[in-house]
Amino acid sequence: MSEFEIRESEVALDDDPALADGDGHVVFIGRVSSPWKQRSECPKNLRQARERGRSASVEVVAPYRAGLLGLEVGSRIILLSWFDRALRNLIVQKPKHAETPRGVFALRSPVRPNPVGLHIVTITALDLDKGLIGIDAIDLLDGTPVIDIKPYLPTTDSFSGPDLQQV
Amino acid sequence: MSEFEIRESEVALDDDPALADGDGHVVFIGRVSSPWKQRSECPKNLRQARERGRSASVEVVAPYRAGLLGLEVGSRIILLSWFDRALRNLIVQKPKHAETPRGVFALRSPVRPNPVGLHIVTITALDLDKGLIGIDAIDLLDGTPVIDIKPYLPTTDSFSGPDLQQV
Repeated sequence: MSEFEIRESEVALDDDPALADGDGHVVFIGRVSSPWKQRSECPKNLRQARERGRSASVEVVAPYRAGLLGLEVGSRIILLSWFDRALRNLIVQKPKHAETPRGVFALRSPVRPNPVGLHIVTITALDLDKGLIGIDAIDLLDGTPVIDIKPYLPTTDSFSGPDLQQV
Repeated sequence: MSEFEIRESEVALDDDPALADGDGHVVFIGRVSSPWKQRSECPKNLRQARERGRSASVEVVAPYRAGLLGLEVGSRIILLSWFDRALRNLIVQKPKHAETPRGVFALRSPVRPNPVGLHIVTITALDLDKGLIGIDAIDLLDGTPVIDIKPYLPTTDSFSGPDLQQV
């Protein structure tokens, strides 16, 4: 946690979601194996991760492996991760190179009330018995929990246009 | 819960995630207001929802409203919802019109170990003080909790190609 610092103009929540009872619970269905062991070397987004050219994998734990039936090598999936090493209480943030602070819901920062990450990746290998999914790249630290996998559907999920300004 | 039935060839988990202690917890940051009060009338996906031509909204609760700073009318967001009325224990499912059963991670079904829904919608109105976000359409029941909002970034999130076969 100490890797994250609160910068000037950032706003913390009065009640830290990390310390709340919670309104619902998640179970970890597996974990990511990635080349990135420390935050300083971890790509900040998937574009950077792909440029590094390092593959990664997801290992789904035994009870949930049957859920992989129907996935295919070459298809894209949406991984939902659980940023287990991120703060949850910064509601307005000022990314290092941003000129003005922004609300967390206008950012893809891992620091958010519910630390769910969204990563669209391509399946490069698949072993249903071992629960192993090879993926082309990932912007997550080694060992990060995974809470869901969904098929990426271009007819539903693909939209063109300019990005909301990010930093 | 009784609205969901287990069909032949479907597989239930031995340990229901809904009854587990959980590995992490979520807080509800708001709720969806939608025209759909009952499951029978609710569109099955966002394409269907858009065809119905009914708008909807999200109300973010007071503590989290500062997180909306930087969002803009006309831009797309990714809503992460919490399917609070769905079962969590079906790991292999046979959608009504499918020929063969599929794993939950190859489906966008609301019935999944962690009941997180993903919805890409366009912001049609925005009131930061009231925490109100107008959206073009939604495939969620009225009152469904929201756990996260992220900006949709075409450069990161848009990919073409055929859909994994869905039903």
